[in-house]
Amino acid sequence: MHLLRVNMTTKQLTLEPLPEAYRLLGNRGLIAEIMLNEVPATCEPLGPYNKLILAGGPLAGLGVSSAARLSAGAKSPLTGGIKEANGGGVAVQRLVKLGIRAIIVEGKSSDGSMYVLHLKQGNFELVPADELKGMGNYRLSSVLRERFGHDVGMITIGPAGEMGMAIAGVFANDGEGNPSRACARGGLGAVMGSKGLKAVVIENDGTYQVPVRDPGAFNAARKAFSDVLLSTPQTSEVYTKYGTASAVLPINRIGALPTYNFSRGSFDLAEQISGDALYDMIAARGGEGKHTHACMRGCVIRCSNVVADSEGKTIVSPLEYETLCLMGSNIGIADIDTIAKFNWLCNDLGIDTIETGVALGVALEAGLALFGDAQEIERIISEEIGRGTVLGRVLGQGATLTGKVFDNPRVPAVKGQAMAAHEPRAIKGMAVTYAMSPMGADHTAAVTFRAPVDHHSPAGQMEISRNVQVTVAAYDSLGFCMFVVPAVGSKPDYVINLINAVYGTNYNAEWLKENGKKVIKTEREFNRRAGFTKTHDRLPEFMLEEKLPPFGLVSDIPEEDYERFWEADFWGE
Amino acid sequence: MHLLRVNMTTKQLTLEPLPEAYRLLGNRGLIAEIMLNEVPATCEPLGPYNKLILAGGPLAGLGVSSAARLSAGAKSPLTGGIKEANGGGVAVQRLVKLGIRAIIVEGKSSDGSMYVLHLKQGNFELVPADELKGMGNYRLSSVLRERFGHDVGMITIGPAGEMGMAIAGVFANDGEGNPSRACARGGLGAVMGSKGLKAVVIENDGTYQVPVRDPGAFNAARKAFSDVLLSTPQTSEVYTKYGTASAVLPINRIGALPTYNFSRGSFDLAEQISGDALYDMIAARGGEGKHTHACMRGCVIRCSNVVADSEGKTIVSPLEYETLCLMGSNIGIADIDTIAKFNWLCNDLGIDTIETGVALGVALEAGLALFGDAQEIERIISEEIGRGTVLGRVLGQGATLTGKVFDNPRVPAVKGQAMAAHEPRAIKGMAVTYAMSPMGADHTAAVTFRAPVDHHSPAGQMEISRNVQVTVAAYDSLGFCMFVVPAVGSKPDYVINLINAVYGTNYNAEWLKENGKKVIKTEREFNRRAGFTKTHDRLPEFMLEEKLPPFGLVSDIPEEDYERFWEADFWGE
Repeated sequence: MHLLRVNMTTKQLTLEPLPEAYRLLGNRGLIAEIMLNEVPATCEPLGPYNKLILAGGPLAGLGVSSAARLSAGAKSPLTGGIKEANGGGVAVQRLVKLGIRAIIVEGKSSDGSMYVLHLKQGNFELVPADELKGMGNYRLSSVLRERFGHDVGMITIGPAGEMGMAIAGVFANDGEGNPSRACARGGLGAVMGSKGLKAVVIENDGTYQVPVRDPGAFNAARKAFSDVLLSTPQTSEVYTKYGTASAVLPINRIGALPTYNFSRGSFDLAEQISGDALYDMIAARGGEGKHTHACMRGCVIRCSNVVADSEGKTIVSPLEYETLCLMGSNIGIADIDTIAKFNWLCNDLGIDTIETGVALGVALEAGLALFGDAQEIERIISEEIGRGTVLGRVLGQGATLTGKVFDNPRVPAVKGQAMAAHEPRAIKGMAVTYAMSPMGADHTAAVTFRAPVDHHSPAGQMEISRNVQVTVAAYDSLGFCMFVVPAVGSKPDYVINLINAVYGTNYNAEWLKENGKKVIKTEREFNRRAGFTKTHDRLPEFMLEEKLPPFGLVSDIPEEDYERFWEADFWGE
Repeated sequence: MHLLRVNMTTKQLTLEPLPEAYRLLGNRGLIAEIMLNEVPATCEPLGPYNKLILAGGPLAGLGVSSAARLSAGAKSPLTGGIKEANGGGVAVQRLVKLGIRAIIVEGKSSDGSMYVLHLKQGNFELVPADELKGMGNYRLSSVLRERFGHDVGMITIGPAGEMGMAIAGVFANDGEGNPSRACARGGLGAVMGSKGLKAVVIENDGTYQVPVRDPGAFNAARKAFSDVLLSTPQTSEVYTKYGTASAVLPINRIGALPTYNFSRGSFDLAEQISGDALYDMIAARGGEGKHTHACMRGCVIRCSNVVADSEGKTIVSPLEYETLCLMGSNIGIADIDTIAKFNWLCNDLGIDTIETGVALGVALEAGLALFGDAQEIERIISEEIGRGTVLGRVLGQGATLTGKVFDNPRVPAVKGQAMAAHEPRAIKGMAVTYAMSPMGADHTAAVTFRAPVDHHSPAGQMEISRNVQVTVAAYDSLGFCMFVVPAVGSKPDYVINLINAVYGTNYNAEWLKENGKKVIKTEREFNRRAGFTKTHDRLPEFMLEEKLPPFGLVSDIPEEDYERFWEADFWGE
């Protein structure tokens, strides 16, 4: 197994054996280690000293369900700290067949050109590709598939990444070539763009096979893992049938659905954007629509979907909870077709629907346009952000900068990153996640909504968020999708058995937990070196005082709880 | 002597005796203490927990030359740290006659209205003044003088402060009513605007007299102080005849004149914007023009000027070095009339010419318009910034934010604040000042240009900058203009004698020095609490590598020098 280094300054490619220390490390954990070891934490995020890391995990390529996530990582132009974001798609399944665990993109092209990194068995090359400049992800993926074959894995950026927008993500394609699997958050697309890299194309002709030390044990463990996913209601029924949209109504019910720029926690029209409404719409329309769909081959959860229009033609795939809320209720839109169209536009430009939706909410509240004005919002996304006008570039730098420009202090963000669609005043574990995670206000660091507690009470939320953060960091670092957590989060042996069978190790649950802790501590150390202090680990001022309707909640996690979060004994050290 | 508290939430005014601990503390030093003691360092700069402090010093009102500076202070919306900025004018001379050392503006008006704080002997009141909303400083000052009398002192903001722009300053008037004495930097005008305060009007009817303990000694000390100013060439000839514009050619000669967004250190047309050219122009045109002018009564330096057009009518007063460069060479303008007009526009909008000039430079370099296109730049200032368009609001947030929006990493700034017109690659003491001062990249923290050393060499610059920083902080905290430093900076007894005679103390030069150190340490402690670390104490990445023409200089102060700057033994502790 190897690391592929791509130096965009010299255009040199170097294949290095994967260091022994990284053997069981993938995705988020691998990114944390490489960033801390190799990248000066104070570097300019869009300068030559930052590195973009594209990584898979140690169980990818072995047919394990949900284990081939692609992670992108770098110092974030949005937060100024370390960032990892992951998405589905087939890129890692292709990459592992070439024997590559991760690609490390270094330096910065100084000739103003864009390049495609083309990888096929026996031939890795950087191809000048100025003809692709400014191209949206959909056309780009179609051009690249025409040129390199329909079975390629692609990692691409849209025009937003080329323009240095901190809302730009890194996108990968699913099995059908749809370039809509986003490593969305933190502006990693801008880092890729700053280096002069428009796309990575990975042909499906690799011959490498991950060696399995105990095939019998592995086959048993793999089957057991699939079985537990298929027998857990959340992963076998809810996610499969309704996808993440299943969360709309339960979250609305507890007053945690961001609405009108986080000024309310429930949306009068929530039913219109619910999982049920989405399911019914897809079912009724037929055609290309699918209420269930797998973003990567072999996933048994299949939480993705394909949304079709009234004529059965695909609008977008997938449409997820965060988008339904942040480009829906948060900006006053209650029409699924409209949200799906916004989502397609965002995918094409290569931008994060969460950061974009929150930035729009902040600007609408300041008077840019009316909440719910779908036509004007569509124009802003496509003609302002898409064309890189000054307004588009403001929104393109995310919610925090947008708040400064529009003199609106009501910005729901931590460490410069917008909150996801879990209002922390009403799901108080999310206040801890948003405040404390080295990732900024990123729900993927730890969703606490499924914990069986009173989400309106601050009691015990530090422990809940910490535990989920550790679990998620551990699973993320093995390449798993976080949606396996409802099934195996508290049953780590399913995962340990896979690792032990493949690598001949003899680990236990403690190992997994220690890994999760170590990842978080490593990321936090990077952020410390980048200049972060405890002042960065707090919620915005307005959430401490402004009562959130309908339950009149404020963020009231006691300061002393925040204070003890990073103390050694809170981590069992 | 009193502190006047103005609570903009409750509209309550409270006069408090000046605490004994603050008796000899004014301006910058008083602001540092009040901020550290009263303001939570993590508060939102434009929220209710920040305070705007308007302060004079302990020698104001006694007829001492250059000792009645007005300081404004608050947590800065530009840097996120503590900020003090000072200017001349007559406000403090009026204020001290009402027995007020400082005004502390607290809270935040929630009714959306603007107010005037009207102070006259025996009657302090907050007057609703929505009719003044959006008014530029020139018209505003004329309206206020019509209403309250021509001899008032005024502290005002223009429309930029009302719009929350971080380039907005706090402005005061000279003896003729010109509202052009700027406490320019750090966005303090936005803090004033956020509170709902459009102006402070101080009538000249106060009867308070600062008690003098030893009148004989004081008169002798005051005369000695005037005499030394009048017998030092820099303060009696250079500043008086040419003003600060005298610096253009010497600084250009050593390659430290920021030109075309800090991409060169010398300007081919520097002679056209030099002190000589300005002097000759003023002399030739006659009329209202004056090459020498006092911003406050009794100043014997009189470094200010009045620039008149070809018909002898005033364009602006004053026109200073920083403006001639940052709205001149830095944006490709070599015409004094044009720069004077830009300066008038900036004064009227109530914005800092330094931050504005640097923000423009960053945007021009990114393609917003051509360097030197005076017509377009004038339109951008008046119609974009002035009207608060999206572009205007971007520039209105300063150079760092502008660089993000326009994807230009060449931003000459530290702690989010633009550098002044002393290029730190060619005057290496300024690299230390910009990097280390708690004020951000603010030349007023310590100009090292007059030190008799090789400015191109990094050797010894830590000590030089530290010493000037301490001296300036001490003088700033007594209300002195920093232009007394060339005359008495190394002869502190002139100042000590004044203090001892007025207050009956028995201090020596060591006291003054310790005061200066304490101010800096107090400010640094505020910044530490606000989340600043040593990563904030460094120059931007591009200056470490990009060679500055014409001398090919980079910023090469060794990292270990920066590292030891804050060590106790470097401060004699």
